[in-house]
Amino acid sequence: MTTNQPYLHPTLIITAAHVLTCDDSMSYFSPGAIAISNETVVIVGDKKDILEQFPDTDITDLGNKVVMPGIVNTHTHVPMTLLRGLADDLRLDVWLMGYIMPVEREFVSPEMCYLGTKLACAELFRSGVTTFADMYYFEHEIAKATAEAGMRALCTESILKFPAPDAASYDDSLAYTREYIQEWQGHSLIVPGIAPHAPYTTTPEILKASRDIAVEYDVPFQIHLAETQREVEGVQAEYGARVIQYMHKQGVFEAKTLAAHCVHVDDSEIALMAEHNVGVLHNPTSNLKLASGVAPVQKMINAGVNVGVATDGPASNNDLDMFEEMRLAALLAKGINHDPVALPAKDAIRMATINGAKAIHMDHITGSLETGKRADLIAVDISTIHNAPAFRRDPNGIYAQLVYASKSTDVTDVMVNGAWTMRDKDLQTLDEDALLAEAAEFAHKVDVFLLERESSVRRKLVAIGGVEYQESFEVQAKAKITSIEALTEQLNDADKVTILKHKHYRQYDTYFYFDAPETDFLRLREDELVGEDGKAQDFRYRLTLIGPSDEQIQDGSLLISRSRYIAPSTHTLRFYREYFRPVSEHTVTKDRLRWRIVYRGVEFAVNIDNLTEPQLGHFLEIKSRTWSQRDAKDKAAVMRDLLALLGIEPEAVIARHYIDLSQDAQP
Amino acid sequence: MTTNQPYLHPTLIITAAHVLTCDDSMSYFSPGAIAISNETVVIVGDKKDILEQFPDTDITDLGNKVVMPGIVNTHTHVPMTLLRGLADDLRLDVWLMGYIMPVEREFVSPEMCYLGTKLACAELFRSGVTTFADMYYFEHEIAKATAEAGMRALCTESILKFPAPDAASYDDSLAYTREYIQEWQGHSLIVPGIAPHAPYTTTPEILKASRDIAVEYDVPFQIHLAETQREVEGVQAEYGARVIQYMHKQGVFEAKTLAAHCVHVDDSEIALMAEHNVGVLHNPTSNLKLASGVAPVQKMINAGVNVGVATDGPASNNDLDMFEEMRLAALLAKGINHDPVALPAKDAIRMATINGAKAIHMDHITGSLETGKRADLIAVDISTIHNAPAFRRDPNGIYAQLVYASKSTDVTDVMVNGAWTMRDKDLQTLDEDALLAEAAEFAHKVDVFLLERESSVRRKLVAIGGVEYQESFEVQAKAKITSIEALTEQLNDADKVTILKHKHYRQYDTYFYFDAPETDFLRLREDELVGEDGKAQDFRYRLTLIGPSDEQIQDGSLLISRSRYIAPSTHTLRFYREYFRPVSEHTVTKDRLRWRIVYRGVEFAVNIDNLTEPQLGHFLEIKSRTWSQRDAKDKAAVMRDLLALLGIEPEAVIARHYIDLSQDAQP
Repeated sequence: MTTNQPYLHPTLIITAAHVLTCDDSMSYFSPGAIAISNETVVIVGDKKDILEQFPDTDITDLGNKVVMPGIVNTHTHVPMTLLRGLADDLRLDVWLMGYIMPVEREFVSPEMCYLGTKLACAELFRSGVTTFADMYYFEHEIAKATAEAGMRALCTESILKFPAPDAASYDDSLAYTREYIQEWQGHSLIVPGIAPHAPYTTTPEILKASRDIAVEYDVPFQIHLAETQREVEGVQAEYGARVIQYMHKQGVFEAKTLAAHCVHVDDSEIALMAEHNVGVLHNPTSNLKLASGVAPVQKMINAGVNVGVATDGPASNNDLDMFEEMRLAALLAKGINHDPVALPAKDAIRMATINGAKAIHMDHITGSLETGKRADLIAVDISTIHNAPAFRRDPNGIYAQLVYASKSTDVTDVMVNGAWTMRDKDLQTLDEDALLAEAAEFAHKVDVFLLERESSVRRKLVAIGGVEYQESFEVQAKAKITSIEALTEQLNDADKVTILKHKHYRQYDTYFYFDAPETDFLRLREDELVGEDGKAQDFRYRLTLIGPSDEQIQDGSLLISRSRYIAPSTHTLRFYREYFRPVSEHTVTKDRLRWRIVYRGVEFAVNIDNLTEPQLGHFLEIKSRTWSQRDAKDKAAVMRDLLALLGIEPEAVIARHYIDLSQDAQP
Repeated sequence: MTTNQPYLHPTLIITAAHVLTCDDSMSYFSPGAIAISNETVVIVGDKKDILEQFPDTDITDLGNKVVMPGIVNTHTHVPMTLLRGLADDLRLDVWLMGYIMPVEREFVSPEMCYLGTKLACAELFRSGVTTFADMYYFEHEIAKATAEAGMRALCTESILKFPAPDAASYDDSLAYTREYIQEWQGHSLIVPGIAPHAPYTTTPEILKASRDIAVEYDVPFQIHLAETQREVEGVQAEYGARVIQYMHKQGVFEAKTLAAHCVHVDDSEIALMAEHNVGVLHNPTSNLKLASGVAPVQKMINAGVNVGVATDGPASNNDLDMFEEMRLAALLAKGINHDPVALPAKDAIRMATINGAKAIHMDHITGSLETGKRADLIAVDISTIHNAPAFRRDPNGIYAQLVYASKSTDVTDVMVNGAWTMRDKDLQTLDEDALLAEAAEFAHKVDVFLLERESSVRRKLVAIGGVEYQESFEVQAKAKITSIEALTEQLNDADKVTILKHKHYRQYDTYFYFDAPETDFLRLREDELVGEDGKAQDFRYRLTLIGPSDEQIQDGSLLISRSRYIAPSTHTLRFYREYFRPVSEHTVTKDRLRWRIVYRGVEFAVNIDNLTEPQLGHFLEIKSRTWSQRDAKDKAAVMRDLLALLGIEPEAVIARHYIDLSQDAQP
């Protein structure tokens, strides 16, 4: 018996061969019983005692199963269940900016969030979860779907410094969040909350405004913290502090804080979190899969931090299986610390139940089977083949069995808030077949959208944003030269040539080629503006998708007409390589002296280029924009004269692109 | 279609929405079909093509499932399924020497191996395994049970330098192995082999003799290699080489070698294994759970080593779930290398199938669905909730789904050698209920055995071996003294005192106390023999279980009678602490000047002790062995005179043990 206070009269008694309470002393009754009055646990104890104490109560006997507190999944993004397996084995930036964000921009809606939540609840029940902590958009829909499923959750609304699927600005998000909190506060299943996304997607102002709302309504404040080394370095560079210290400075910890990930935290940060009762949400699979690293869980536990386990969203996991996370948390702590006694099974079970509830600030409601808490419980069938045999001489054996041998599919029954949501593997509140069909339909739409995008490089370029379309029509000619100095002198001294501008660049061009020869190719240009001292003064990165060209020879010059899509190049070469997956790649590097001149009333760009990779030597290149065949013809004639003026014979003129010359030169 | 050679006429065609072949080009047919003739794959291809080619053949349609090659579990100890969860969250030495080995000594028998194998086969089929590689004792029984279950396996018989459960010496093991190989060679399901256990449990002679047998019969040679850092250091110290180099020097790689674990191997060792076609068996869960570390799998794959995945024995896992291992292998490679594109899902599937078969030198038989190979295949139901939704635009998506989302419990059908062993989750060749009942009975016996052992410290001591029993009966007295020098002088100068021996020790004693006050206590004594230069010359470690004593005061001296169990202390203090789990621990450290003297015809030990921890000061202690009450009385009288001779007043004599004085002095 766990207490001696006067009891409510129970409406139901559940009995089973093994009852784990996850109370402070990890009481374990075998056989045990739980007396429940509607949604509340009356008392937990030995089966015989409970049955004697309440003789006329309905009994549900769960036989040889283990009955234990429902599992708490402390960090997830439930609607992202609809994005499970969307794209895998990619770098974080390619995955996020190349796939997840474009698809979210297109598909996240109240309906998607509602459907995704119901789908997730079905999977969560099947794996023994009775409470989860969510962070996404349209949390109102998520809360609604969760409550309808009979699931318990902390639903925290995301706040971002960028426009989000459910808000044009963060002000809108804050307004939405206030209204959302007011609507759901006091609900029997839902705890609302606020979730500024992460240090790198918010500002100090957003953090403070979010904290104020959390404190005002006394609701939890969830945030992703110290997930990657890159984030740690970014915060250090921008705010001169480690991530947890930065949060502390913004007064975030005045709120009931939940910190997801905490992979890269040092001892002082751990101490700070312990001091301020910050709950840490450990996501072992996601942190491995995205190569973020392994959080120092044992250290945090030793320091007194409440650490829960979590799946993260199924787009980076790819499931909601808390048995897998529990097991992986226990295994990783040992393997990484070279300590086989680190994070024993009993502690892993604690993390998945009561400590998870503490970490999300909901332990007054759930996380253990104790008098006065809500009846959130599960039954686990330990008679399956992978559970056999079982040794019973060591009372901790039952925890080791659950963590190291049992599977989520051994969960047979789930009760949330005193109501069964799964009985003998049958979901009671959700229509699984309908959800599967709707999810398949959603995935098909996403596949069509992505297939269309993948079918053309242009669509993939558009998907990552900021593209500008240009039609270009230009005349150009080039010639091999031997002396830069002589030509430069001629250009500066030539009569009738007016020099408008002169610049010196180093240009690094990478060309991506794709499968079909007639398709576009993509150029990533990195321009270094070189000062008089020879040092780089400025940089410019540009991504240009160059469409198939229509080319003619015009008086020895090339007349080129083509379309271009120009985008700022904000990612790395590696990002683009992995995102666009070119079949081949080609690099051209040159040193360019560039003049903008006027000659006989026509504006020309004159380049004296030193092709350094591949080493093709020096070239003169003259170009001019044009608007019509007639204009092109006129300009080609003027260009021929300009070439002559600069001492270039007509037969020396080459009507080729550098990239073609460069490819000819390759082995 | 995978080949164009003339075909056998098929006896069965299996069709499914997705057919993965795991052939060299990872051909994937959707929908696909496999034509089978008895136990052999005739051809794999598009469903339409196959059905047209063989119109009058029986068809088994597996609907929307994935059909793929059966999974290869490349390293396990199947009978140890019966030891699943025997003891967890312990250090390797405590786990192995404190639990696994004592239980194996008591319970490993032909019957145990037979039962454990059948139990394992049931679990293996349920998780999609069609081939495993085993290493244990009584491999004949294991092969027999495996063949009866209709499972395919490489069964390698263990060779150890110590007596094993199935052989009194390694010569016996070698003889057994020859006979065993001769009996099973050429069997349709079983490949026999030999398995010298590990570098630290064999000798160069055993390795060479085993290699000779493997080469003579052309059978695989399996061994545990470079599992722990400690093993690496041991081999370095003993043979002056790294583990793989040491093996190479013994000529081991002339055999078809399988190396389990390879956690601690460097680049040169990896190159050596690649050169000699050594298959590596990667055990991610076991290596984390026992805190051995993480094997450099991506490096080995890059170097061209055939790396398979494995569960290891269920005593250190604690299951035989290859879906978990596949997933963990893929996740760990990313998380540990900080590279999210390391070991993508397709490679993980390859490791679990064809590369596993290559690693165990059985790829001519199994591991892929290709013309001429045996029909070893499984069906995976990907319509379960944790598999939804599925994106199909990327052909690698199917691999990601299997690795990151599917579970072993999604396996519905298993065929080995053309025969169904599981249909729609029903085992066809094994009686699961009977196996569960027999396993439960076995576990109960082990529990009884261990409970009895755990009930007394003596039994636990005996379980780890080398114990010697003594009854002791001695008279002793001690007194607090102030000057060592004066007393030493008196002793040396005293008339009638003959000094036989004199030594100087530093003694470190740790006492373990247990729950009930009347039980025994255990003393770990570390003796440092100190030379004239004050430096330690020799060490001695001794473990003494001191039984409850019968004590009387005899002329101011203590007359003590008690039993002792003395064992060499071959493990660390930490080992004993974790193995015996004392409720409290007490340390006494002293500097001891010891004389063995004869006084009035009686032999005495005279100790002048400086108690340094706790700091209790100096004591004179005199002891003599005795045989009877009468003799004890006489000796006590002589001892009183000796004390007087040394200037000790009768009232200064203390009838206490140091440990008691020491405990009195503690706060």
